Order: sequence, then C-alpha cells, then structure tokens
Amino acid sequence: MNETLRIGVIGAGRIGKLHANNLVNSVPGARVTAVSDVYEPAAKELAEKLGIPAWYTDHRKIIEDPDIDAVFICSSTDTHSPVSIEAARAGKHIFCEKPIDHDLAKIEKVLEEVNRAGVKYQVGFNRRFDRNFSRVQEVVKGGGVGDVHIVKVTSRDPAAPPISYVKASGGIFVDMTIHDFDMVRFLSGSEVEEVSAYGACLVDPAIGEAGDVDTCIITLRFKNGALGVIDNSRQAVYGYDQRVEVFGSKGMITADNETANNTTWYTAESVQKEKPLWFFLERYNEAFITEEKAFVKACLTDTDTPVGAFDGLQPVLIAIAAKKSYELGGAPVKVGGRA
Amino acid sequence: MNETLRIGVIGAGRIGKLHANNLVNSVPGARVTAVSDVYEPAAKELAEKLGIPAWYTDHRKIIEDPDIDAVFICSSTDTHSPVSIEAARAGKHIFCEKPIDHDLAKIEKVLEEVNRAGVKYQVGFNRRFDRNFSRVQEVVKGGGVGDVHIVKVTSRDPAAPPISYVKASGGIFVDMTIHDFDMVRFLSGSEVEEVSAYGACLVDPAIGEAGDVDTCIITLRFKNGALGVIDNSRQAVYGYDQRVEVFGSKGMITADNETANNTTWYTAESVQKEKPLWFFLERYNEAFITEEKAFVKACLTDTDTPVGAFDGLQPVLIAIAAKKSYELGGAPVKVGGRA
Amino acid sequence: MNETLRIGVIGAGRIGKLHANNLVNSVPGARVTAVSDVYEPAAKELAEKLGIPAWYTDHRKIIEDPDIDAVFICSSTDTHSPVSIEAARAGKHIFCEKPIDHDLAKIEKVLEEVNRAGVKYQVGFNRRFDRNFSRVQEVVKGGGVGDVHIVKVTSRDPAAPPISYVKASGGIFVDMTIHDFDMVRFLSGSEVEEVSAYGACLVDPAIGEAGDVDTCIITLRFKNGALGVIDNSRQAVYGYDQRVEVFGSKGMITADNETANNTTWYTAESVQKEKPLWFFLERYNEAFITEEKAFVKACLTDTDTPVGAFDGLQPVLIAIAAKKSYELGGAPVKVGGRA
Amino acid sequence: MNETLRIGVIGAGRIGKLHANNLVNSVPGARVTAVSDVYEPAAKELAEKLGIPAWYTDHRKIIEDPDIDAVFICSSTDTHSPVSIEAARAGKHIFCEKPIDHDLAKIEKVLEEVNRAGVKYQVGFNRRFDRNFSRVQEVVKGGGVGDVHIVKVTSRDPAAPPISYVKASGGIFVDMTIHDFDMVRFLSGSEVEEVSAYGACLVDPAIGEAGDVDTCIITLRFKNGALGVIDNSRQAVYGYDQRVEVFGSKGMITADNETANNTTWYTAESVQKEKPLWFFLERYNEAFITEEKAFVKACLTDTDTPVGAFDGLQPVLIAIAAKKSYELGGAPVKVGGRA
Repeated sequence: MNETLRIGVIGAGRIGKLHANNLVNSVPGARVTAVSDVYEPAAKELAEKLGIPAWYTDHRKIIEDPDIDAVFICSSTDTHSPVSIEAARAGKHIFCEKPIDHDLAKIEKVLEEVNRAGVKYQVGFNRRFDRNFSRVQEVVKGGGVGDVHIVKVTSRDPAAPPISYVKASGGIFVDMTIHDFDMVRFLSGSEVEEVSAYGACLVDPAIGEAGDVDTCIITLRFKNGALGVIDNSRQAVYGYDQRVEVFGSKGMITADNETANNTTWYTAESVQKEKPLWFFLERYNEAFITEEKAFVKACLTDTDTPVGAFDGLQPVLIAIAAKKSYELGGAPVKVGGRA
Repeated sequence: MNETLRIGVIGAGRIGKLHANNLVNSVPGARVTAVSDVYEPAAKELAEKLGIPAWYTDHRKIIEDPDIDAVFICSSTDTHSPVSIEAARAGKHIFCEKPIDHDLAKIEKVLEEVNRAGVKYQVGFNRRFDRNFSRVQEVVKGGGVGDVHIVKVTSRDPAAPPISYVKASGGIFVDMTIHDFDMVRFLSGSEVEEVSAYGACLVDPAIGEAGDVDTCIITLRFKNGALGVIDNSRQAVYGYDQRVEVFGSKGMITADNETANNTTWYTAESVQKEKPLWFFLERYNEAFITEEKAFVKACLTDTDTPVGAFDGLQPVLIAIAAKKSYELGGAPVKVGGRA
Repeated sequence: MNETLRIGVIGAGRIGKLHANNLVNSVPGARVTAVSDVYEPAAKELAEKLGIPAWYTDHRKIIEDPDIDAVFICSSTDTHSPVSIEAARAGKHIFCEKPIDHDLAKIEKVLEEVNRAGVKYQVGFNRRFDRNFSRVQEVVKGGGVGDVHIVKVTSRDPAAPPISYVKASGGIFVDMTIHDFDMVRFLSGSEVEEVSAYGACLVDPAIGEAGDVDTCIITLRFKNGALGVIDNSRQAVYGYDQRVEVFGSKGMITADNETANNTTWYTAESVQKEKPLWFFLERYNEAFITEEKAFVKACLTDTDTPVGAFDGLQPVLIAIAAKKSYELGGAPVKVGGRA
Repeated sequence: MNETLRIGVIGAGRIGKLHANNLVNSVPGARVTAVSDVYEPAAKELAEKLGIPAWYTDHRKIIEDPDIDAVFICSSTDTHSPVSIEAARAGKHIFCEKPIDHDLAKIEKVLEEVNRAGVKYQVGFNRRFDRNFSRVQEVVKGGGVGDVHIVKVTSRDPAAPPISYVKASGGIFVDMTIHDFDMVRFLSGSEVEEVSAYGACLVDPAIGEAGDVDTCIITLRFKNGALGVIDNSRQAVYGYDQRVEVFGSKGMITADNETANNTTWYTAESVQKEKPLWFFLERYNEAFITEEKAFVKACLTDTDTPVGAFDGLQPVLIAIAAKKSYELGGAPVKVGGRA
C-alpha cells in the first residue's frame, strides 16, 4: 500500500473547499498538492489558507501533472462528465461530486472511459457514510429485519434555495431527491423497477413559476418485490430532516435526526429537546470525512470504491422516471428506459 | 341534559363485548338495558356477566323497545346498514361499527334515513380518540404546524388474520386501510381528492391466492393541495405499529407508539426499550372508552357526534378508489366517483 | 374463592373518594356497601354518587356490621392505628392508607393485633403498582441487573402543600420521603441499614419557619451492601417527577416519567415533548386500581397481600432515622433503633 | 493576536499522544515543535508519526527552548507540580493534565508561581467541554432553571482499571470522582462547602484489599445553599455512563449519554437502542479538541483560560474532604481545611 495519495482538487467553491479542508486536516494519507478554479482568487485563497503548494485557473494543469494520483471533481455539474473523461484518460483516480451528469449518454460515456482506463471512480453520495444510515444498512444487510418489505426515506431541506438555483437545478427529482434515490438502493440492496411521483408547490409559488415543485412524495417498487416511499420538502422550518426506516419480515430499523446535544430542558411551559442540525454541512460533516477516507483507502490499497460509477448512473435513471411520472400526474413509470 | 342513556347492544361478538363492558364499567351516564345476538349463548353470557337485564336473539326486540334510547350496532358488517335504517326509523340514536357498508348506495340510504329521522349517528373510528392522535389533530387544527403540506400514517398489524377472514374482508383497503383513510381526513382537515396505490403480497402467499395484498403504500392528494402517504402491513412482528406525522409550513408534529411501560434496560449486550403494545385491544383500550363517552354525551346533550355518517361514507369512497388504483397498477384515481 | 368482597370505606375525603370510586367502577369482585365520615355530608354525597347503600358518621357502624368483609381506612392519619386495631378485632380484612402511624409503639401494636386476628392487612404504598416501577422490580428480582449496587429514586412534587398541611405532616421525611423509603426497599429487595440526610429550605421560607425542609437528599446503605440515594423537592414546576434507577453488576434499569401523550412537536423555535403528568392523581391513577385489585384478590383467595403491615413499619423506621440524621447535620444514623 | 502557538508536549503516554495528535491535526493555530518522554522510543515514535521536528528524553530541553510558547504537561501525576513550576519560571503558558497534585501545599506553590510569572494556566478538566455538559451549564448560567436547588452527576467507568493502577491512584475520590467534583462546581456556579461520602467495594474484592472502594455516593452542600449528589462505579457493563441533571426553582435540565448512532431496532424479541459510547476516548473525543482550542485561543489572544489553576485546586480539596468523610463512615466534612 502506498502511503500517500497526491490529490488535485478541481473547483474551489463551497463543496471544493469542504473536501480540500477535510483532506488536508482530517484524512491521513491524503496530500492535496494542487487546486484549480476558473475564478483565480478562489483557487489562490484556498491554496494559501490550507498550505496547498499550487493553484491554477485551468484544471488541465492538474490533469496533466504526473505527480498527481487522484482528482476531486468539485466544479459545476456540467463539467463533471467531461472532466471525468479527461481525468480517466490521464490515469487519475476520480472522486466526482453528484450527479455525474443529467444526460444518460454522457454518464455512460464516463462509465466506459473509467472502465477502459481502470481507474478508481467514486461518486459523492455522502449520506451513505452517515453513522446512522450506514448502521441501518449494516443491520438490514445482516438480515436484522429479515426480507425487506418497506423502505421509507424522509428528506427535507431547512430552507428553499434561491430561485436562480432552482432554475438551474434540473428540478427537485434530479437535484434533491437523487440523494434519496441513492439511499433507497443502498438500504434495500435492490434496484428500483418503477416509480410513481406526486408533486406540489406549497412552499413558494416562485418555485412553481420556475417550473418546479417544492414538495413531493415518490412511491417505489423494487426489483425484489419490496415497496418504498420518499417524501421531500424544500423547507422544514425546524431544520434538516433526514430520517430513514426499513421494515421487513423480521422487524424494523429506524434512524432519527442528529442534534447539537442530548439535553432535555424542563420548565413550567414545556419540555424541550434540541432541534435537528440545521443543514448538510452540520449534519454530514463526519460523513464527508468518512467518504473521503474511503476513497483514499480504495486508491491506496487498490480495492473497489464503495460508491462506483454505476451507482452514479442509477439514481439519475430513477430521477428521470420520477420526473416523467410527475408530469403524467402520478402514473407509474418504469425505471431505466431512456427519457 | 338527561342523566342516563338507555342502550341496547346489537351483537355480542368481540367488539360488542368490548363496547358493552366499557359502557357498563367505564362510561358514566350509560345504562345497557339489553343485548342481542343471533347466537343466544353469546347474548346470554354477556348479559349475565355484566348484569344486563335483557337478552335476545332478535335485534328487533331492541329496536322496538320504547325504553331504549340508543343502539350500538356491533353485528356483522353486512347488517350495519339495514339495522342502521331500522334503528333510525325507530328513532334510536345509533353508534355503528365501521364500515357502514361496502356498497355506496346502501351507505347513502343510511345517511338519508338518519337525516330524516334526526337521530344521532356515530361511526366507530376509534383511533380519532387515541390520546396521541387527538393531540396531533388539536395542534394541527390550532395552526401549530401552519398550513399542512404532508400527512403520513404508518399502520401495521402485528399478525395477519386467518385466510378465511381475509377472504370475507373486502380486501385490505376497505378492511384495514379504511381506518387510515379516516385518520388522514381527521388530521389534515381536508378531503382526499385522488389516490395512487401500490400493493404487494410479501407476508403470506396465501393472502395473494385469496386475491388480496398484505403490504401497501397509498399516496394521496388532498383538496387543499397537501400530499399524504399511508403504509400498511398485515404483519409487524414487533407489535401494532400505529404512528402519524403531520408536516406543514410552520413545523411538524409526530405521534409515537404506546408501550407497556417507560423503562430502559441496559446490559452488556444491549439497551432495550419496550415493544409497542401488541394490538388494538391493548393500544386503543382508552380510545374506545373515550369514543363511547363522546357518543353518550352527544345523545344526552343533543349535540353533534364527533364522527358522523358522512365520516363513515368518505373513507369507503377513498378505499374504493385505492382498490381501483391498485388494480390499475398504481395509476392515480379520483375519489368520489362510483366504482 | 368467594366471588364478592363486601367493603366499608372509612373516610370520605380525597383518598377515600378515590378508593370508593375505583372499587365501585374498576375493581371486579369488590362491592362497597357502606361509607363513613365524621362529616356527614361528605359520607352522604359519596354514597349517593356511587350508589352505596349505607352511610354513617360513626365508623364503628362499619366495624360492627357482620355483612362487611373488609375495610379501607382512609380517615386522618392519627386514626389509622386505632381503627386498624378495632377492625382487626372485628375480623375485618384491612386496607390502610400510609402511614400506619408515626409512633412506632402504635404500629407494633397494630402488627400484633393483625397477626392475632389473622386478617389480611395491606398498606397503601400505591407506587409499587405503577407499571414502570413494578417492571423495574420484576427485572431486578429476575436478576436482570445482577447484584444490586446502586438504587436511585427521584421524587418531586409539582407544588408545595399549604403551610397548614406542612405543620401537621410530621415533616418531609415521614410525609413525603416515606413513599421513597418504601420504593428503595421494594426495588433493592433489601432492608435499609443506615441513612444520612441533607435537607434545605429552598422553595419557600415559610416551610423552614414551620420547622421543615422542602429539598433533601438522603443517602442509604442497605443490609446487602448496596448503596442508595433519594432526592426530594416539594416543587418541580414542570410537574410530578417520579423516576427510579437500579444499577448492578450486570446492568441497569431506569423508569422515566409518564406523559399525557407521546407526541413531539417541531417548530422553528423548539422541539417539544409533553411534560410529566401533573400529580399523583394523574400519574398513579392506574396504580391505585391495581393495588385495590391486589387487595381484593388477596382477601378473596386467602393469599398474602403484596404490601403487609411489616412493610408499613419499615419506612417509618427509616424516616425516623433520616429525620435524626438531618437534625445531626447529615451524620449517618442506623435504622431501627427507637428515636 | 499571534497566529501560531508553538507547543512542547511533555509526556508521550496515552494522554500525551492524544493531545499531540489533536494539536497537530485538529487545532488551527497550534504547532507542536517538540515532544519529550523519559522513555525515548515513545517520544521518537510520536514525533515521527506526527512530523514533530524535535524529541527529547529530558523535558527541560522543552522548558529551556526560547522558541516554545507553551507546554502540555502530560507526564506522570507526581511530575505535574514541579514541571508546572519550572515552566512558569521559564515564562511558558501551561496546559496541565489533572490533577495538579494530591498535595495541597504543592498545588498552592504552583498557583503562586503561575501568578508571579503571569503565564496562562489551564487544567485538563475535559468534560466541561463536552457538548452536552457545556449546554447544561449555559442554560443554568442563563437562568434557565432558576435558582439551583439540586445538582446530580452520574459517572461510571465501563470497567475497573488494573489493581496496580488502583494502588497508585490515590483512591477513587481523587482519581475518578475528581472530575465530578469539578463538574458540580462548573454546573452549579457555586463552591462546595461540605460533603458526606458513602463507599463500598462491590465490583472487585481486590480493590477493597488495595484499600479503595469501587462504588460510592457523595452528597454535597454548596455555599449558595443548593444540594448535590454524585454516584460512581468503577464498572458499568453497558459502557461509560456520564449523565448530569440540574434542578432549580424554574425547571430542570438533563444531559444523556452519547451513542454510536441514533438508530432503533425493532424485532419480535425487543426494541434496541445503541449502548453508551464505551469510554472517555470515544465519549470525550470532541471535548478534548474543544479544550485544546480554548487553551490555544486564550494564549494567542491573551485572555483567561476557561479552567484555571484555582479550578485545579478546588476539586482536590473536595476529594480530600470526601475521603475523610468516607473514612469517618459518612460523617459530613467541611471542604477546605487541610487534611
């Protein structure tokens, strides 16, 4: 096993900063040697803050650097697939933020190139590494609830994003629910065969005017016969609501939200517990570090990454089917056909 | 206000015994003066055990008794609507176990006769009187979660009924989910406009052979725009799983299961809480008494019953739509059209 | 087994009403045939409300009635021991509210007379019949926590009683903590050998002026070597706080408070659970019925009562030692010597 | 504010490794430039693993280094006070593991030298920085429970230490309870005036043979009139049990244990929650980092440390009184007199 993985971080925005910071401070075996961003001050500032030796505006400087082993693709979504292909051709291991692309043909091209190059590929489905959800999956996989009958995911953001973001997002199913589509695959251990999606615009009419919904419930039928349901909202005023439940022939396992602490405060007026942690940076802080460690370990030990390119493709297929079902007023749509 | 309501209990099976026992022991103002059952020993035994003065095999003895103010219809489902009509015509107040009927025309005939007679009518949707669910409804109604966006009901029986029961039940939607259809109306304060139902036979193949499913997820769209989801299973091995959640613009309220006690037991192997109470007799024991008190009070004070004949009709309409949706493979079906 | 226990209730104050009402409405096999109170309207009102055939101002009418099998002594504390003796001599089974007396000689006289008469005797330590505490005891007794090392009881009233009550109460240790002294014996399965008591007047200075304390912590050493601690307050503004914990060589079991329901309410401001039930009438409603049933059963089946006269004596001995320890500034005092 | 604090770590045992690792990886602004240990391989290994430039067997190399700003004293307890004095005289800021010493005269000498030198001094009471306990203190300090009446601390280790450790520990009160004595001062905001201690040897007779106890309950009286209680055990088989509760005139706040995740697993046999985290390395991992950050910040910004030398003295005084009380069979002993 090599001792150090030399990494270039492509994209110095919010998620790029997060990965770079974790890789430098919390991931033994990782060494970030370069960062790039089309906006030079962002790259420079991040490099200086973390003591990263090199920064560029052109990510190809990273791709072409023979002393770099792996890249983290944290640039805008439209660059994920082309940069993945460039990196694969250059023989770099790849950690790519989700989604790989909204276009199935482009994702499949990525899969093809990654397979040909024989490099590691990991997609940023960070929630799989949450201590609660990974425990649920472990128990389910170990037979702790028997055969899976029902999988339930509640996933609600604390506040709606700006309308500009909504417009560019590709819609709630591909932008937000995609994490939950990955989660139901992860928890059920089965592929999704068919979905039926109901949506509504209840949080903010501007979201509806932008052609999207802010509230939705998606029912799923798995290949192994189990059923599932996901409910989403763009605005849970009490904080980021991220819960799952798997029910089966021998029992059930549920995962509750995370809170800032475990205190209970009793007064003449009320008994108060802490609210759920506010959003993904708070809730999934440890999960991001765990996913980064997993990637670094897979690269250094030449083993499979825990979330491969195929896992990046499947949720996009489900999201496309869900969107179509929503457009059909909730009619069931099979997953996997081209849109 | 009259001080005592003289009641005849029609049907001395499981649910008739339960009501008679509660009315005698736990409902001030109620006096059970007669009981009937087509099987004489059942009527006689119940009467003797509870000190009820009269028992009959023919329920018309109760209907025709001028000293009886009200009846509890606890006989088999097919008798609910004709006996309701007889009792209404005789001027008796009526508590009728759910469902009024599976046939819409018969239910509407009951509504018509009840309205004409001006008697009180209450349908046995006992769960509305559960301390948890009634608190949820109270908070929602008081604006405690703002506008309702999502209503969720989990409702799972501890063990599947005998196949003979399944065959005569009318199917899971009208037999089991009907309680949940009532619950979502109660909690949301809105009518259901459309449903989409997924079903599967995962618990016992014999249920499938009987033409029914044992596992289902039903998505709902309410007239006020909110969305809802119900999940059912005929078999939760850990006990009767009865939970609800209402999410809205200003928050969320959830109700958890009831347990035999509030202890937590820590050992080297595990930390154990109590399991949910086993089934409806344990879980809804207090709720039955509360619903009976509400009926008696409505009769004695000449006020509206909390769950009227209209409330008996609506869940049947939803169940019919759900069944149709299931038969259509999950396609959305509007509620309210005749089947 | 006789089918019915004919009971006379002596004392129609708060606790007499409670027992009479439960015996009439909730305890099969019990028949209350008479009630007495020195204040005639109280006796009459209770008799009429519950349909009890006879009422008296003189409790001896009950004692002397050959058709009465058992008495519930619910009159003022100073009458508990003399009426117990009268009833025992008349061959009546006896349920006596706690404490039997504050004077050890009088308690021992009661034990003597009860033993001589061979009647059943049960002391009103209702908390043993609470579903939580009885489960804790059951697990401990079954070896579920191994050898007992530490027993903890938290017992706090929601609001301080009137000063007039405090003055006549005999002090917090004999009035309030006495329930907890019974509880630690019940849970540990061992007698208390020695206590050390700290007290303070923190809730209301008037309690201190009346010569009592309103806050105390009592440490206990059991005969089997285990240690224990009780903490009391006369005022927990959030409601009746009644929790226990037993820790041992193989684990721990804890019992939490009871609440009005199991809901959780999430808003932008807070996550709220229900407060503990307000006071003993709410919290121990079921426990009272359970203790009454146990007494009636012991009488009808000629078996031992679950809380005998000896169990009435021991907590008084501990309370006397605790009071002495408090007066000595917390110095340890052996239990069992005469004060 | 200086940007970097140059630190020498004295002692490369378990706790020295922990601090060095955190300072290197998780505390921005800290730079560990040297480490010492009397056992050279330990110092060398730690230095090499973390990339620390220098290692020594003689801690005076660190004390005398003009380029070092602060020291972490992590060597054996008997060295804490002399090394503190050497470091103070050399003008180094000092983080010292607890306890400063068991000998009051030596602690007071440290206080004197630290005051004279004007250096920062922080004692390693890590639990104050736990997210739960710091929240409790924050609420109490903000008046959230009103005047404090009762403070309760449960503190139990998962397994007893080796007998060799017990023999050298100074006894349970000064070795284990000392953390809890600090905690009650922290939570109550008041000094302890008097204690009464009960102890027993219930876990392992060998501990008793070594002249110590393994189970104890200590009652405390605070200067502000409040009461407190601590219970300790050397062996809680279900894991590290670390809970606190503060009760006052306006309410109560409690802090529960930490667990590996928030899942609940339901089966036909049981409902299981996760056990408490196993021991202090798991439970207080974040708390250690928070305390280190607080020390580094106090040094860099020239502000007071959150836990000063006086806070190091007080728990030792309480421990001495508790030990004396235990030896007197539980008689109350005033805190603060010399032993």
